[in-house]
Amino acid sequence: MMNRLFRYVPILTWARDYDRAAFGNDLIAAVIVTIMLIPQSLAYALLAGLPPEAGLYASIVPILLYTVFGTSRALAVGPVAVVSLMTAAALGNIVEQGTAGYAVAALSLAGLSGVMLLGLGLLRLGFLANFLSHPVISGFITASGLIIAASQLRHVFGIEAEGHNLAEITLSLIAHLHDINMATAVIGISATVFLFWVRKGLKPLLRRVGFGPAMADIAAKAGPVVAVVATTMAVWYLDLADAGVQIVGNVPQSLPPFTLPSFSPALLQQLLLPALLISIIGFVESISVAQTLAAKKRQRVDPNQELIGLGAANIGAAFTGGFPVTGGFSRSVVNFDAGAQTPAAGAFTAVGLAIAAMALTPLIYFLPKATLAATIIVAVLSLVDFSILRRSWAYARADFLAVLVTILVTLSVGVEAGVSAGVALSILVHLYSSSRPHIAEVGLVPGTEHFRNIHRHKVQTDPRILTLRLDESLYFANARFLEDVILTRLAYDELIAHVILQCSAINEIDFSALETLEAINARLRDMGVTLHLSEVKGPVMDRLQQEHFLQELSGKVYLTQYEAACAVGLQPDRA
Amino acid sequence: MMNRLFRYVPILTWARDYDRAAFGNDLIAAVIVTIMLIPQSLAYALLAGLPPEAGLYASIVPILLYTVFGTSRALAVGPVAVVSLMTAAALGNIVEQGTAGYAVAALSLAGLSGVMLLGLGLLRLGFLANFLSHPVISGFITASGLIIAASQLRHVFGIEAEGHNLAEITLSLIAHLHDINMATAVIGISATVFLFWVRKGLKPLLRRVGFGPAMADIAAKAGPVVAVVATTMAVWYLDLADAGVQIVGNVPQSLPPFTLPSFSPALLQQLLLPALLISIIGFVESISVAQTLAAKKRQRVDPNQELIGLGAANIGAAFTGGFPVTGGFSRSVVNFDAGAQTPAAGAFTAVGLAIAAMALTPLIYFLPKATLAATIIVAVLSLVDFSILRRSWAYARADFLAVLVTILVTLSVGVEAGVSAGVALSILVHLYSSSRPHIAEVGLVPGTEHFRNIHRHKVQTDPRILTLRLDESLYFANARFLEDVILTRLAYDELIAHVILQCSAINEIDFSALETLEAINARLRDMGVTLHLSEVKGPVMDRLQQEHFLQELSGKVYLTQYEAACAVGLQPDRA
Repeated sequence: MMNRLFRYVPILTWARDYDRAAFGNDLIAAVIVTIMLIPQSLAYALLAGLPPEAGLYASIVPILLYTVFGTSRALAVGPVAVVSLMTAAALGNIVEQGTAGYAVAALSLAGLSGVMLLGLGLLRLGFLANFLSHPVISGFITASGLIIAASQLRHVFGIEAEGHNLAEITLSLIAHLHDINMATAVIGISATVFLFWVRKGLKPLLRRVGFGPAMADIAAKAGPVVAVVATTMAVWYLDLADAGVQIVGNVPQSLPPFTLPSFSPALLQQLLLPALLISIIGFVESISVAQTLAAKKRQRVDPNQELIGLGAANIGAAFTGGFPVTGGFSRSVVNFDAGAQTPAAGAFTAVGLAIAAMALTPLIYFLPKATLAATIIVAVLSLVDFSILRRSWAYARADFLAVLVTILVTLSVGVEAGVSAGVALSILVHLYSSSRPHIAEVGLVPGTEHFRNIHRHKVQTDPRILTLRLDESLYFANARFLEDVILTRLAYDELIAHVILQCSAINEIDFSALETLEAINARLRDMGVTLHLSEVKGPVMDRLQQEHFLQELSGKVYLTQYEAACAVGLQPDRA
Repeated sequence: MMNRLFRYVPILTWARDYDRAAFGNDLIAAVIVTIMLIPQSLAYALLAGLPPEAGLYASIVPILLYTVFGTSRALAVGPVAVVSLMTAAALGNIVEQGTAGYAVAALSLAGLSGVMLLGLGLLRLGFLANFLSHPVISGFITASGLIIAASQLRHVFGIEAEGHNLAEITLSLIAHLHDINMATAVIGISATVFLFWVRKGLKPLLRRVGFGPAMADIAAKAGPVVAVVATTMAVWYLDLADAGVQIVGNVPQSLPPFTLPSFSPALLQQLLLPALLISIIGFVESISVAQTLAAKKRQRVDPNQELIGLGAANIGAAFTGGFPVTGGFSRSVVNFDAGAQTPAAGAFTAVGLAIAAMALTPLIYFLPKATLAATIIVAVLSLVDFSILRRSWAYARADFLAVLVTILVTLSVGVEAGVSAGVALSILVHLYSSSRPHIAEVGLVPGTEHFRNIHRHKVQTDPRILTLRLDESLYFANARFLEDVILTRLAYDELIAHVILQCSAINEIDFSALETLEAINARLRDMGVTLHLSEVKGPVMDRLQQEHFLQELSGKVYLTQYEAACAVGLQPDRA
């Protein structure tokens, strides 16, 4: 009972050893992360189509819940770019942006995703996320980054534009190009250029003047704060809001409110697939950051408990005015580099953001949306990496195909279709290749007891004996392929009287495959050909003995391939 | 060019050697199969919800086309029980039975299925059918058999009943039980009992009085003809049609008409999934009969050419008043046992049925539908075999689960849902098990250079070295499992300084898995642990060399596990 409690509530384990040193380290990390998170939270709320305060709310209670239930010591939970884009895409099809229904639907999406994550964690189904392969994720994030950057251009130029894929957004941007607001464009473009310089130019500069790599990185991450302060002051001082610059405006000064998501079955049904995709994408992103950081200190994160932690965080978001959240890459790295030792750093960050939500919101009244858009663009363009196409092409065509389809479908149709197509295609490709396993015809290496592929080695064979080695486990999808290979070989070679199946690489034979082996045995018997097995592994032999297959086998089971071949008449050359 | 023609039109190959002996044998077989097919065709048309002549039409042109394009020398193509049931289920949801639209939709279903089969064959995608595993098919056919038998009870008792699953049909039968027609019930029950006796009692009797097994079997297969003649005469002589016995009635005396299926996009879209399922089920049934019969004579059938043959047959059915057809089990066996030597036997059968359609149809005016229902019930109940549940349970729980779900869903929801659930579940179970591959921790067998599982053998290990052997290829769905196993092991064992991965059973590493190996390498390096590989297969090594993984690998690649272990400090005991 207590063990289970400790397993599901990791805070009970680490909080016992919490000391002053850890407190100091966690507090410093929290201050740095808080400063970085304020503009980021506002920006991602904008990306998700929600009012800016939703970004702050989504970073407070979810972080606290993750602190209690999560296992990673450095993961920082909150709104992230790709998940915010997926939120906008999911809700955009159902309710109109800017309406009260939109915000409620965002709560439902977070809640549904939270329940799914929690369920997967409790049922220990974290392995399902493995079906989202690395190349598919890379392709998906690259394509999403492009869509996000394109969608934010409207804020940078102060024009209208809509759409869920690159073509729609681009066409919409072009159609509205004449509405461009000059003041907005000046702010947006300068903020973007400044932020790119901070990322590319400032860091090397700081390194040259003596900063350590971690500190230089953290300073560069504070760039958005500088941009926010500078452009806010510019708008206020120059009355640019009157010149048509869109500003954040009134943001309520409050702690996260208690909110109720909608439980409408019709809405929940529409959100089912998006919530599942958001859960899986969010989990995979989060777990890979968490594992990378944990490994650096030889610590462990438990994937199933991470699902529970992220599930709790999202359910928290649903009841406190937020939207779907997950572990963010850059903020977690900053947290780690700044010295966070325990999840308590996350709790302190939550307190920092709560203070911001209560006290600082009047200060961002004049913050231009163009600045937030610039921070998003700079953040997501660092995720765009087409090298995955070149690398997967060089490695294997099947992997390349999965990446290419993911990128093309994401860009041309949208995020949900893109990630679904990628997952489906990679599973199909895997099934296809495993349904045509490698089958080698083998012969005896003279002077030894070893059997090798007749096409690669100079080996001794006997025209009356066909020996095949199957390099994969036998299961329903590939057993008939083996049958096909054997029957084709026999139809064109009347001399063969014995078939020996070398089973050294077969780890498992499922029931279908057993039935196929029975069929092969019966068909060979009809042809007057004997079937033998050799080198059957222990667990496979146990299985075969449960059925009557071994009694009906026309030949025998031999311990070694050599023994089998000699028993049916091979005369080894004594070379 | 000519080669390709010969490949796609197998008749060109076998017709050249056709001689008088083959002609004689084929003709005898054709006469026997024709007699057997007449009642069967009428009955399956009834099962599919179509007028009886559709069954005859579906057996004429399709057989001729299969003769030209098929590769099996004994397969008899035409309407079969399970496919007829699936046709009724597919059309029943869309159009009302008995209307002109229903017959046209049946044509479209055959045409669509034919195009799909043809496409799969030309694209050489026959392997897709492998995903329908043996246990799933057995479960599906057993459940379908029960549904068909239940659905025919209404004709046996002369009452109304509807439904696409066992519960619906049973409830409907019970609700209409008071409408029972006594004359019909007498005919239906006696025909059923007679046919069961023919199958179970007549065959042993004939064997005892000296018939050979093949002839006894063929005589038993002629039982339905006797029942048809006897009950037709009874109805005619006793005026039972006036007593409410449903009869076949007027059947046009004609060759198969030229018909046009509907090309309505809305209809075709609704028929898409049913057509796919019918195609796959039909193909799998057909190919397994064809392969069984071909093997008995050491002949070959080519699965992809079979798809083309069946595709042509179904397209033929669509344009000549038929409905979906495939290779039938019992008629093919009769054809084979009666001595059919080439596909010409099929062509002669088609001629026989054409004569029947032109000349014999007036004779079946008084044929009671109850008799046809009885022939269906007796035929399908022989397909019902629940032993698959016991056998799969004894073999492996995963296989049992797939069978059980297929049977339950088929019985409770319907045929399409049942077969889809079975396929989906068996793929999921396979993916799950392959995502958690067997990973053995191995140690040195003293006095040898062999490494074996530390839990099964007395082996020598070194606390600084962790050696794992992965018993499966690495791909996207299982690579992270390996990562998990390694990282968990290291988090709890501070002594380990070297990890050696024995790759002897790894036939392939996909791009995702390579990325995971890179991640494992990087994470181990962060922990100060070195990663080594041993016994990497040639093709895998070729792949790895294309990428920079080997340059970044913290350790080395060794030819053998023994070499690797010694190189990192294992001191073999000289026991």
